[in-house]
Amino acid sequence: MLEDKKPQLTPVSQLGEFGLIKHLTENFPLENSSSELGVGDDAAVINPEGKKVVVTTDILAEGVHFNLGYAPLKHLGYKAVVVNLSDLAAMNAVPSQILVSLAASNRFPVEAFEELYAGIALACQHYHVDLIGGDTTSSNAGLVMSITAIGLQDEQKIVKRSGAKPNDLLVVTGDLGGAYMGLQILEREHAVYLANPDMQPEMEGYDYILQRQLKPEARTDIRTTLEEMDIIPTSMIDISDGLASEILHLSDQSKVGFHLYEEKIPMDTQMINTAEELNFNPVIAALNGGEDYELLFTISPDSYDKIKNHPDFTIIGHAVEANQGNYMVARGSNELIKLTAQGWDAFLNKGE
Amino acid sequence: MLEDKKPQLTPVSQLGEFGLIKHLTENFPLENSSSELGVGDDAAVINPEGKKVVVTTDILAEGVHFNLGYAPLKHLGYKAVVVNLSDLAAMNAVPSQILVSLAASNRFPVEAFEELYAGIALACQHYHVDLIGGDTTSSNAGLVMSITAIGLQDEQKIVKRSGAKPNDLLVVTGDLGGAYMGLQILEREHAVYLANPDMQPEMEGYDYILQRQLKPEARTDIRTTLEEMDIIPTSMIDISDGLASEILHLSDQSKVGFHLYEEKIPMDTQMINTAEELNFNPVIAALNGGEDYELLFTISPDSYDKIKNHPDFTIIGHAVEANQGNYMVARGSNELIKLTAQGWDAFLNKGE
Repeated sequence: MLEDKKPQLTPVSQLGEFGLIKHLTENFPLENSSSELGVGDDAAVINPEGKKVVVTTDILAEGVHFNLGYAPLKHLGYKAVVVNLSDLAAMNAVPSQILVSLAASNRFPVEAFEELYAGIALACQHYHVDLIGGDTTSSNAGLVMSITAIGLQDEQKIVKRSGAKPNDLLVVTGDLGGAYMGLQILEREHAVYLANPDMQPEMEGYDYILQRQLKPEARTDIRTTLEEMDIIPTSMIDISDGLASEILHLSDQSKVGFHLYEEKIPMDTQMINTAEELNFNPVIAALNGGEDYELLFTISPDSYDKIKNHPDFTIIGHAVEANQGNYMVARGSNELIKLTAQGWDAFLNKGE
Repeated sequence: MLEDKKPQLTPVSQLGEFGLIKHLTENFPLENSSSELGVGDDAAVINPEGKKVVVTTDILAEGVHFNLGYAPLKHLGYKAVVVNLSDLAAMNAVPSQILVSLAASNRFPVEAFEELYAGIALACQHYHVDLIGGDTTSSNAGLVMSITAIGLQDEQKIVKRSGAKPNDLLVVTGDLGGAYMGLQILEREHAVYLANPDMQPEMEGYDYILQRQLKPEARTDIRTTLEEMDIIPTSMIDISDGLASEILHLSDQSKVGFHLYEEKIPMDTQMINTAEELNFNPVIAALNGGEDYELLFTISPDSYDKIKNHPDFTIIGHAVEANQGNYMVARGSNELIKLTAQGWDAFLNKGE
C-alpha cells in the first residue's frame, strides 16, 4: 500500500471565521500589565498606565511585499510584526500590543494560517508584545496582512522625525544593504528553480544577508542602550525604504539638510561580496535597498564622545542648514552627490 | 472637434506611495485633544487623558464584503469607518482616532482613492474622529481595506460582552434586517443590469433599506442616551453578523442563556414588505442578515421602567440560566426554537 505523503489539509470553511480566529489566537497569553482585555470582545482594552500611546500600522500584500515561492509563511508572520515594531522603536516607544488582520484566498488551508501565526507568536514572545485583536476574512486573490502595533512611552521620551538641528550628528545602527542583497539572491535562486525544479538552490555563504531579508529584527534594544548612555535622539526614523529616502524624511520634517559621508556607511562584508558578485554597487544597496529595519537618528554634537566608539552605532554625517540641501560626500573625490528618494515604493516598484 | 467626456484619470505611480498618502490625508485636520501626533511620522501619538484605550480593527475585501459594481467608493469609505466605530460603541467607548490601510490593484486611479477618502472624511467629520495614520500599497488583485479604530473611556464605563446575569433584560436599538434586504435589492438590480445595461434599476420605494446597506450608521449616540437615563448595560455587542449570532456571543461570554421573543423583534415596514415581495421570511433577515450595526445589550431588570417606552429601544427578551440554552419563543404558538449562528461568515458565505 502506498503511503500518503501529502498531509491532510483543512479547508478554512471547516472552522468558519470565528472558529479560525479562536483556533489561531488561543495560544497567545497576555503578558503585559497594560493588556487589560484581549481577543474575544468587540474591541480590546489597553491600560496606558500614565503614558502616551504610540500607534502604527502597515499593510503587506502578496506579490508586492513578499513572494510565498521563497518566503516561508512562518518567516512572513515574524517579519510582518517586526516591520511594525520597528516603527515603534523609531519613536523610542516600548512595544506592548499588536492587532493582526488577514485577507486570504481559499487556496490557504488552516495549516497555512497556523504557520503564519507560529511566526507571529514567535515575534510576540521575542519582543514581549501581546496579540490583543484582529480580523480574518477570505479574499478573491492572494494574501494581504495588516498589522497595527501599539506602544507606550512618557511624553518627554518620544522621539519624532522633526527635532534635528543643524550640526546634529547623523547616526545609524547596524549595517545597511543586506536585506536588499538577500532579496537578489532569493530571486536569482527562485528563477533557477522555476526554470529547473531539480536544481538545488545555492544558498551557502549568503546566510547573513538571507536572514536580513527573511527574518529581520526590530532594533527595540536601542532605546535602552541610548538610555544607559544618557542620550535622547533629537529625531529618529527606521530604515524601511533605504537610507537616502529616510534622510530626506528627516530633512523634510526637521527643516534641515544633511551631509552624508559615503565612506562612513556601515556595510557587512557578505553584502559587499554579494553585490560585487552580482555586479551591483553596494553603496546603492545601502542607500536605496531598504528593509534593513535599522534606526537612523540625530543627536546633539555634545554627545559625540559618548557614541563614537560604541559598536552598535556609526556616525555617518551631520545636519546642515535646510538651504544647503541633502548631499552625499563621495569617497575619495569629495564630490557632492545630491540625495534622491530612489527608495522602495510599493507602487513604483510594482512588477519590477 | 469632439469633446473628451471621459475625465482624465491619474495613475497612482504618478504620485508614488508617499505622494499618494500625503495627497489623501492633507485635508484631515486633528480635532480631538487626544490626537497629539497624526499622519507623517513613523507612528501616531495619542494622549489617553487618564482613560483606558479601546482598540478594534476590521478588514474588508472586495468581492467578499463589497461589490464595486453597486457600492460606490465614497459609501464604501464611509461604511468601513462605521463598522469599526460600531465596535467601539459596543464597548461604550468614545471613538477618537482611526488608522486606514489600503491594498489596491493598479486598476484604481488616484481619483478612486480620492472618492474612498471623501467617504472616510465624511465619517470622520460626522463622528468626530481623527485620521492619524495608515498605509497604502498596491496589490495583485482587488481592493482590501483595513481600519483600526481607537476610543477612550473610563474603566468603570467600559461594557464587555461578559457581564449579563440571569433575568437581565435583552434590549436592541433601532430595527433589524434592513441592511440584508437592501443587499438583496442591490444584487437583484445588479443582475438585471449585467443582463441588460440599458435597463433602469428599480430602486424606488427601497430608500430606507438601501441606505441601511450602503450607508449604515454606528450607534455612537446610544452611550449618551443611556447615560442620561442613568443606565449602564451589563453586557453589550453590536449587530454585525445578525441578531442570533450576537445573542450566542453574549451567551458564550456571559455564561447565561437567552429567551428571545419573535413578536418583539423590531422590524421596519419597508423591510417587511420587501421580504414579502422576495418571498423571504423577514424574521430570518433580522435574525441572520447582519450588517445592521445596531446595539444589542442587557440591563438589570430594575431598569425596566426607565427604558420600556423609549423610542430608541426595544426589549426583545431576557437572560436565563446557562443550562436553559438560547431559544426564540415563536409568535402565536409559543414554540421554543433553538437559536443557531447562521450569521454572516466571511469564509462560509464566500461565493454564495
